[in-house]
Amino acid sequence: MRARIAAFLEQAWVRNGIIGVILFNAAILGLETSDEVMARAGGLIELLDRLCLAIFVAEIGAKLVAYGTRFFRNGWNIFDFVIVGVALIPAAQGLSVLRALRILRVLRVISAAPRLRRVVEGFVTALPGMGSVFLLMAIIFYIGSVMATKLFGSAFPEWFGTLGLSAYSLFQIMTLESWSMGIVRPVMEVYPYAWMFFVPFIMVTTFAVVNLLVGLIVNSMHDAHAEESNAATDTYRDEVLRRLEAIEKRLAEK
Amino acid sequence: MRARIAAFLEQAWVRNGIIGVILFNAAILGLETSDEVMARAGGLIELLDRLCLAIFVAEIGAKLVAYGTRFFRNGWNIFDFVIVGVALIPAAQGLSVLRALRILRVLRVISAAPRLRRVVEGFVTALPGMGSVFLLMAIIFYIGSVMATKLFGSAFPEWFGTLGLSAYSLFQIMTLESWSMGIVRPVMEVYPYAWMFFVPFIMVTTFAVVNLLVGLIVNSMHDAHAEESNAATDTYRDEVLRRLEAIEKRLAEK
Amino acid sequence: MRARIAAFLEQAWVRNGIIGVILFNAAILGLETSDEVMARAGGLIELLDRLCLAIFVAEIGAKLVAYGTRFFRNGWNIFDFVIVGVALIPAAQGLSVLRALRILRVLRVISAAPRLRRVVEGFVTALPGMGSVFLLMAIIFYIGSVMATKLFGSAFPEWFGTLGLSAYSLFQIMTLESWSMGIVRPVMEVYPYAWMFFVPFIMVTTFAVVNLLVGLIVNSMHDAHAEESNAATDTYRDEVLRRLEAIEKRLAEK
Amino acid sequence: MRARIAAFLEQAWVRNGIIGVILFNAAILGLETSDEVMARAGGLIELLDRLCLAIFVAEIGAKLVAYGTRFFRNGWNIFDFVIVGVALIPAAQGLSVLRALRILRVLRVISAAPRLRRVVEGFVTALPGMGSVFLLMAIIFYIGSVMATKLFGSAFPEWFGTLGLSAYSLFQIMTLESWSMGIVRPVMEVYPYAWMFFVPFIMVTTFAVVNLLVGLIVNSMHDAHAEESNAATDTYRDEVLRRLEAIEKRLAEK
Repeated sequence: MRARIAAFLEQAWVRNGIIGVILFNAAILGLETSDEVMARAGGLIELLDRLCLAIFVAEIGAKLVAYGTRFFRNGWNIFDFVIVGVALIPAAQGLSVLRALRILRVLRVISAAPRLRRVVEGFVTALPGMGSVFLLMAIIFYIGSVMATKLFGSAFPEWFGTLGLSAYSLFQIMTLESWSMGIVRPVMEVYPYAWMFFVPFIMVTTFAVVNLLVGLIVNSMHDAHAEESNAATDTYRDEVLRRLEAIEKRLAEK
Repeated sequence: MRARIAAFLEQAWVRNGIIGVILFNAAILGLETSDEVMARAGGLIELLDRLCLAIFVAEIGAKLVAYGTRFFRNGWNIFDFVIVGVALIPAAQGLSVLRALRILRVLRVISAAPRLRRVVEGFVTALPGMGSVFLLMAIIFYIGSVMATKLFGSAFPEWFGTLGLSAYSLFQIMTLESWSMGIVRPVMEVYPYAWMFFVPFIMVTTFAVVNLLVGLIVNSMHDAHAEESNAATDTYRDEVLRRLEAIEKRLAEK
Repeated sequence: MRARIAAFLEQAWVRNGIIGVILFNAAILGLETSDEVMARAGGLIELLDRLCLAIFVAEIGAKLVAYGTRFFRNGWNIFDFVIVGVALIPAAQGLSVLRALRILRVLRVISAAPRLRRVVEGFVTALPGMGSVFLLMAIIFYIGSVMATKLFGSAFPEWFGTLGLSAYSLFQIMTLESWSMGIVRPVMEVYPYAWMFFVPFIMVTTFAVVNLLVGLIVNSMHDAHAEESNAATDTYRDEVLRRLEAIEKRLAEK
Repeated sequence: MRARIAAFLEQAWVRNGIIGVILFNAAILGLETSDEVMARAGGLIELLDRLCLAIFVAEIGAKLVAYGTRFFRNGWNIFDFVIVGVALIPAAQGLSVLRALRILRVLRVISAAPRLRRVVEGFVTALPGMGSVFLLMAIIFYIGSVMATKLFGSAFPEWFGTLGLSAYSLFQIMTLESWSMGIVRPVMEVYPYAWMFFVPFIMVTTFAVVNLLVGLIVNSMHDAHAEESNAATDTYRDEVLRRLEAIEKRLAEK
């Protein structure tokens, strides 16, 4: 029974059918944003959306039956499970934020299409190598936020009033968005030496981001290089050493 | 007859003459933007523009005669055909947008000058390798647009009123242009937790763009590396193996 | 006695304990930014902060006793010494800027955690290779500042009134923040040819930054490549040459 | 006589003395931007500036005598000649722009300090490889400027009134500075489909810039790689082939 459900789910037309339902659902959820369409055919659209959701629930239910606890060993299955699970909550409650989260269901295309899956897996495998730099950035942001709050919090409560506001403002400054005209020049009118905090902050965070980028490039290059060149080179080297050994042996035999 | 036209078109002075006409036409179209010049010599300029167009039409006509259906096998020929074709429409109608499109004729320099052709071909061959990342970006933008429209559309119709407006605003945010002072801070005054949508959106799209860039660099490097190093290395390796074999054979013969 | 203190300081639980105190101190200094928390438990927080500082002073004192003058041979020890030293001044005086500097103590996590230490060391070793480009940037900025002050200083004293203001404005322009709408367009209303100064300035500094980046990438790649490939290649090459020599010797002996 | 002047100019203390005069002159020209300093010691500063200029003129005159026409074979000598020549004009006329150009004399540090010279030479040698992409960018900018002037020139004369204004605005848009909030959103209020021109323009120019960057990285990497790895590899390969030949010869002789 389990094996038959698994075999059914792994058929090409079932997989492609699911991708079709995901894309159809994406279009439905897109149409839902149009007031005009909702006024004319709101009932139909909600019905179709629920139908799509029902298909997803049925699919995941079938997978749970077919694979049992093995289902949760694959990260992508957990991803699907959570996304469909989230989509079930707003249907019950109706909170606008939860309703908006339903569109996340479209992310299922990624888990369903192998090519997209590989791209995302490539992104995710790049993350651990950047862990230390991220930790360093977190420390710099924490220190920067505490300093900015203490130094400028009282005069500019809107930007640096609390740790959270300071962290947001520093993130904005790190992206270089309106850092000078919008934030630092007004601050410098009250504290003329404020640039001594912000200019080094920009330099340090930009330098850290650049190093992240450089690290990413070097790692990717290294992987690509190692993968391809080694196979041919190793075969050749083994061949050369094998032949040299054979010649030596033959000479010794004489 | 066909062969003679083809031979004529492939002569160096004909090719360079066409490039000359393209550049002359570019200058003419540039002068057309000046009201003063048009007031004084508008008739002459329009005449010269039509003359250039006539030369292009004649050239493409001659190519069509010379190469027949083979003409459409080369992408650059189709490119020339469409660009000159587009230029023919406004001459008839006079719509200002179509008139402005006539300047696209200058793009013909690219198809006419081999060095520029190679640069653009380099760009275009880089595109397919980035297909998956582009698809992923499209999915992220679609999801982001639907969410932004549902969450902020009613309060900020100018930025997030429809799917299209949201997509444009998110594109602006991805380029980091005025994302905080211009868009997110005003939105946060109504929805204080809006940063929970926008900051991750910026991080994800920036990370995807960075990965695109890294992929491009790694691919280019790989191609450049493979191309040059393999020729010399392969010759050397074949030589070593050939000699080792000869030695073994000689030893076996004795 | 000295050896026993050194042995005690190098125990894993002492090292981890110090990291724990640093993190606890970071949390305390973060809480200090909240007026509400300070109103309720300000005394306790200040007490805990002083306690943390006392532990740091004791640790560094113990290290000084244990290692003597060798303590100052390690750059990270000097780093710790200065950071804790700075933290001691504000406790005496109470200047708000010096108080804000106390959060720099959190930077001690970097010197205490080997992984972060290595990342920062990677950053620092990259700096000397960029020395010449930095010097060039400094020259460009100095020349740019003098020119901007002389040309635009009288009409725009707020942006280009002094060398310092010009340098700050040019730094903003280099980061491309509001360079056109905020600075150059207003300047061009008075001096229509101002773009002849600013556009080349942007191009030159951007090109220099790009070259810095390229240099960084090439160096990192080079290091990574050299490090890994050489070990295996060198062993193989030595082996091939050794065997060829042996064969030649054997043939000569006969 | 000529040889003695050349020998004198090439002495280490003369070279360093010239660098010293350049730096001293840089400081003098910096002080000139301060109204306060000029009010107190304006005469002295102008005197010192003229003294520095006199030394430069003497140095270049001496070089001209020593090297004759060979002087102009070196690009850096022409660079020095032009820069000092430019500095001579304002002394006579007094136009404020020409006075501001005097600071360009400080650029002589680059030609005088070998390390900086090498960095700039590195930049300059990178330029020809990017020629085709620059040409392509120029074409894109020309086409974009003509189109923007024709499409939006009448409604937004301040931004797109003439070819020059359009080119400047498109350069601003390419740097992503206020492209949306500052330019495209206002334009879209009049021409709702203006994004169909600007968004592709941003994508194409950004992609071209990225390809420029990628090309630069790949070239630098290639040069660095080729330079270092080939020496060792070539020696090794020649050695292997030489020994194999020797073995074959010995075997043939028997």
